Amino acid sequence: MRAVDVIIKKRDRGELTSQEIDFFVKGFTNGDIPDYQGAAFAMAVMLNGMTSFETADLTLSMARSGQVLDLSKIVDLAVDKHSSGGVGDKTSISVMPMVAACGLPVGKMSGRGLGFSGGTLDKLESIPGYRVNLTTEEFKTQLKEKGIVLTGQSLDLAPADGKMYALRDVTGTVPSLPLIASSIMCKKIAAGAQAIVLDVKTGVGAFMETLDEARKLADLMVDIGRLAGRKTVALLSDMNQPLGSTVGNALEMVEAIETLRGGGHPDFREHCLHVAAHVLVVGQRAKDLEEGRALAEKCIANGSALETLRVLVKAQGGDVSYVDDLSKFERAKYVEVVNAPRSGYISQVNARGVGEASVALGAGRAKKSDSVDHAVGFIIHKKVGDSVQAGEPLFEVHANDEGKLAEARQAVLAAHAFSDEFVSPLPLFYE
Amino acid sequence: MRAVDVIIKKRDRGELTSQEIDFFVKGFTNGDIPDYQGAAFAMAVMLNGMTSFETADLTLSMARSGQVLDLSKIVDLAVDKHSSGGVGDKTSISVMPMVAACGLPVGKMSGRGLGFSGGTLDKLESIPGYRVNLTTEEFKTQLKEKGIVLTGQSLDLAPADGKMYALRDVTGTVPSLPLIASSIMCKKIAAGAQAIVLDVKTGVGAFMETLDEARKLADLMVDIGRLAGRKTVALLSDMNQPLGSTVGNALEMVEAIETLRGGGHPDFREHCLHVAAHVLVVGQRAKDLEEGRALAEKCIANGSALETLRVLVKAQGGDVSYVDDLSKFERAKYVEVVNAPRSGYISQVNARGVGEASVALGAGRAKKSDSVDHAVGFIIHKKVGDSVQAGEPLFEVHANDEGKLAEARQAVLAAHAFSDEFVSPLPLFYE
Repeated sequence: MRAVDVIIKKRDRGELTSQEIDFFVKGFTNGDIPDYQGAAFAMAVMLNGMTSFETADLTLSMARSGQVLDLSKIVDLAVDKHSSGGVGDKTSISVMPMVAACGLPVGKMSGRGLGFSGGTLDKLESIPGYRVNLTTEEFKTQLKEKGIVLTGQSLDLAPADGKMYALRDVTGTVPSLPLIASSIMCKKIAAGAQAIVLDVKTGVGAFMETLDEARKLADLMVDIGRLAGRKTVALLSDMNQPLGSTVGNALEMVEAIETLRGGGHPDFREHCLHVAAHVLVVGQRAKDLEEGRALAEKCIANGSALETLRVLVKAQGGDVSYVDDLSKFERAKYVEVVNAPRSGYISQVNARGVGEASVALGAGRAKKSDSVDHAVGFIIHKKVGDSVQAGEPLFEVHANDEGKLAEARQAVLAAHAFSDEFVSPLPLFYE
Repeated sequence: MRAVDVIIKKRDRGELTSQEIDFFVKGFTNGDIPDYQGAAFAMAVMLNGMTSFETADLTLSMARSGQVLDLSKIVDLAVDKHSSGGVGDKTSISVMPMVAACGLPVGKMSGRGLGFSGGTLDKLESIPGYRVNLTTEEFKTQLKEKGIVLTGQSLDLAPADGKMYALRDVTGTVPSLPLIASSIMCKKIAAGAQAIVLDVKTGVGAFMETLDEARKLADLMVDIGRLAGRKTVALLSDMNQPLGSTVGNALEMVEAIETLRGGGHPDFREHCLHVAAHVLVVGQRAKDLEEGRALAEKCIANGSALETLRVLVKAQGGDVSYVDDLSKFERAKYVEVVNAPRSGYISQVNARGVGEASVALGAGRAKKSDSVDHAVGFIIHKKVGDSVQAGEPLFEVHANDEGKLAEARQAVLAAHAFSDEFVSPLPLFYE
């Protein structure tokens, strides 16, 4: 078999066999197939597409390009939850303790933020001492003993994916559904997931801007999961406006913890309960969504969800006092409350605008090597559909630099739109 | 400007500007743009195409990626003739002396053969001493003093093209019309051509197998020539069966010389006169094709075309006695006449089959680094439309190895097809 013939087959819209895909992925990973052939292949896939079968084969080949974690000796059923990323998305930090408190062990490997989209690891590191670099053994031991782990990739999971993603980034082949779907799913499979809940975001602050694109991605990932023998459920949730009321690492941690205490923004709480119910169902701890939701609510009400967060933070070396005293979280030097310039109904809080402003403020990364300021960010007081009076608090900017504060104020104001007419709130979920 | 944005624009079917194309070609040539971006670009062009404007820009940028010869101080009008390659195509070796004898100076840089398609340089080297590695200065001096040059590329003309071609070869991006057309035309322009006659072959022994593909390539190259300010004419000629009656380096030289003497296969002679007439017209030595053809015929009849070949061979260090004593050409150890296995009309002499058999025999190259045996090849006695009796000579195999001879006999027999019904001869030219 020759790499060029695999490229030519895809170029001519042929359907690749499992063997051809595996040959290409293995050769690309070990360097036998050079980057320029990987790039031509990626562009051919980008423009000619792949069937679900091909995408599932690609996913499994990439998953097997490195070590595949076997969690079956540790837990009955390894469940993973994945969000396609967005602005203000701290869902994992609330949902994982909820479901673990309901008796479903969850071990999750998260990523860092890049671009306008934040990352779970950056948020967790707002708690001093919290380690996100557990070894595979530590991961397994903690999952077994504590029933909850939330860390970074402990080993080089699916190295083919890392290599392919770096190449896609510089060859204009990022926005390819089969390549996006396989990239997400191969890491879940390599991390040992047997059941997967996918939270696919759609809207201006998501990678998939339209509902149609998001639905296609969700369908494809569910197909891959099915073909790979993993029970997979996908939710389509809104990312036109930021999720909940906070954007920025420490601010989001505070909101996540408040939610576990039974508080937090009602939108975010509702979002978490819905996701948690799905995780409990695929994890076979609840027979249906209603029971799953009731279980999750109970774990919040009886304090067990918050206690599970304490267990998690302690197990990973974090200062557990932060969970109980939210005032301990690092606070930015400047906090400015920005009032509404006019009365009316909020018709837009552009998630992408807010996300990009948070990167400019230092809360996120423009490029991978950037460091992150945990204290800075925004509190959004009004969401789409809310009515507001001129002069009423609209949002807060938390900044460590006066110049950046002024820029951020302008950017986030510009992300808001107002209407004289009544505006319906945005749905949390589409399907 | 970033390379990835140029790739993305082409990926999304945008029309690239001259600046974008020039940026990409320059960066790719000097190594600022790595091969993997070149490969993604080539695949995007392959699948999404290019307009004539983009292709002309690409051609000019590639031509300017190295030195561009200026022949305007040497000749009034530098004319080039290019064939898209085929089996038994020794046209340049006959046509160049014809037109030079008519008073039109011609300096041509030719290539070597690869795959089933032979190369002019390999044929010329059947004459001992003939140099195909003239320097640029030697090229110019000889063009000025002798009015005829037939050599290899004396310098790194259009280095972007060489680099891009090597990449296309391994990334499945060879059969792209804009990339093929720009690759041919950039070398003509870099070599100083102000007027160009393109002989685009079509048929099973050509790169463009269908007339439709060949016509598209021809039209595109004429467009490029026009947009680049070069008078360009394209002919569409048949390459379903070998051109003339010989395939193989020394055998083809003999046929080319016989044609200059007024002999040779009538098909090949007719082909050469038609091409020569076009070259004389674009070179402004004849007002129309009729006059051009008459001029060329006259130069054959009065011996001046043959004399011009002698001048050429001598100028480039070749043993000129070969031109007058064709028995001096190296002859293969084994010559076998293969008779027709049946009576009937010849309905096919598959040019590709014959071309591949000649490579197997050693007359051509499977890969660039192979050396070439000048003596071996075939003489084709019957062409499509000819009637043949069983036992009558059909073709000759000239070989230096008995095993290869047997294989070649089988392969060339298999390339022939017979019909009981009358078969029309193939046209020489389609348009």
